[in-house]
Amino acid sequence: MTEIEHSFKARLAGVADAVEAQLAALLAPGTLPGEIARPERLMEAMRYVALGGGKRLRPFLVVETAALLGAPGEGALRAACAVELVHCYSLVHDDLPAMDDDDLRRGRPTTHRAFDEATAILAGDALLTLAFDVLADGATDPDGAVRAGLVLTLARGSGAGGMAGGQMLDLAAEGRFEAAPRALVPEEIRRLQAMKTGALLAGSVAMGAILGRADAGQRAALDAYGLALGAAFQVADDILDVEASAEEMGKATAKDAGAGKATLVSALGLEAARAEAHALAEAAVAALSDFGPAAERLREAARFTVGRRS
Amino acid sequence: MTEIEHSFKARLAGVADAVEAQLAALLAPGTLPGEIARPERLMEAMRYVALGGGKRLRPFLVVETAALLGAPGEGALRAACAVELVHCYSLVHDDLPAMDDDDLRRGRPTTHRAFDEATAILAGDALLTLAFDVLADGATDPDGAVRAGLVLTLARGSGAGGMAGGQMLDLAAEGRFEAAPRALVPEEIRRLQAMKTGALLAGSVAMGAILGRADAGQRAALDAYGLALGAAFQVADDILDVEASAEEMGKATAKDAGAGKATLVSALGLEAARAEAHALAEAAVAALSDFGPAAERLREAARFTVGRRS
Repeated sequence: MTEIEHSFKARLAGVADAVEAQLAALLAPGTLPGEIARPERLMEAMRYVALGGGKRLRPFLVVETAALLGAPGEGALRAACAVELVHCYSLVHDDLPAMDDDDLRRGRPTTHRAFDEATAILAGDALLTLAFDVLADGATDPDGAVRAGLVLTLARGSGAGGMAGGQMLDLAAEGRFEAAPRALVPEEIRRLQAMKTGALLAGSVAMGAILGRADAGQRAALDAYGLALGAAFQVADDILDVEASAEEMGKATAKDAGAGKATLVSALGLEAARAEAHALAEAAVAALSDFGPAAERLREAARFTVGRRS
Repeated sequence: MTEIEHSFKARLAGVADAVEAQLAALLAPGTLPGEIARPERLMEAMRYVALGGGKRLRPFLVVETAALLGAPGEGALRAACAVELVHCYSLVHDDLPAMDDDDLRRGRPTTHRAFDEATAILAGDALLTLAFDVLADGATDPDGAVRAGLVLTLARGSGAGGMAGGQMLDLAAEGRFEAAPRALVPEEIRRLQAMKTGALLAGSVAMGAILGRADAGQRAALDAYGLALGAAFQVADDILDVEASAEEMGKATAKDAGAGKATLVSALGLEAARAEAHALAEAAVAALSDFGPAAERLREAARFTVGRRS
């Protein structure tokens, strides 16, 4: 492992630990002003979903982008948790029987399996709501316009025109709503993926930029980085799905590969998909050239997404 | 009908019309900055949920409270739409087979019946997300701190410690998660209802107060009003459920009354519940005494909730 890789992995793990602790505090039993009571079963399900899992790549992007621009830790950590709460809610709802119907996630029973469907739906709803609560709270940033900007960015990235819309397109691509579905062309797959996965990753970078008061030039560079990184991530994920066994991934990968899921691997073939992933990662790296050595961990994150996930 | 009643009903209908038009604009096909595309089926489902129905009482409370304090129309109307989007999302998710399993809502097939379960889940998610988008957008208020305050208030009222938590308690009260459920005592029912229904109604008033830059004394009076109104509304709704036939309500009321749903009517009896509803409405009216005649429509709204719903 190179020095840079080592530094990146240590920082990724460090952010993941800090996010875990902050999420645990956000999901503690005590109520906040304006809340009446936090039902035990619901909180238990929310903690089941949000705690103890994942590399926390989205939080890393928020924290690292904010740090690049000199924004202090606690606000960035709270914004990072908000993004992760949205990511977690989307996993719970996507796993539901009416959606992808998955029994396992990260090697554990999915939330509707560990609890029940109603609890899983409500836990997802409450996690999504909590994400906006966390951003709007004064503890995230003293400037209300910054807090509102974070809310707007997260909402646009995760709503009908972003992540939720991407899941809708993904279900449609499976032929759920048509008698005779047609295969998507690569450009449609790219758009689907930009919405379903890319928008939240790009949004994470954008939220770091908002917290760090990026100027127009910095923001444009970071947006280009986030866009390329988000696209690279999903192509790389599709490649992993094909390559990895069900056990290694801890979820049912055969389904993704086999059931006509719209991926660039199935549309372009494995080699062309791999080339696209690497080109996107390189574009992400190149977008940060003006930031110099300070942005090396963000560059490393782009390389990490396409080759060194473990 | 008295002069006051007439004025109230005309204003209620006027706000409902304005909300309908604004919601239609918010749910139009065109994308906003930061959105990639709005999938047609998802938007169609969102419009099915949000348009064409209801008295729009929550929006009325936002608009009327803001107007009482001199806050201009467009921001209040946007905030009113945000509250209604949250109300609508909660209806879609509560109606799902895994939750209350309802086939009809306002006399029409529920969203998962008219579309499918996956689309209904996603439409609810996207409506909730859009609510925060609408509040955080600069068009709602020029002051970022006000926009963030609106987001925080709506999130607290509708999340785990408010509406979503209340639905969880309601499912628990039905005995979903226990072999031998016990009947709730009246105080538990009041808390459940304060969360499930009251929090969003009280939140609507609070959001109007935030938009209107209420001072501490005004805010305290309006909070007291919102709290009492929210409680009155739910007791009155339970009474209506018992009294009205399934056809008149356009939904399956026998289920609410019969299946051991936790209501004050079943816990206290019809007469005591009616007395409580009227006492709460009177408390709501009394809370606004300092505002003088300008608050008459809000007072009328409190009376309306307990006696003149049609």
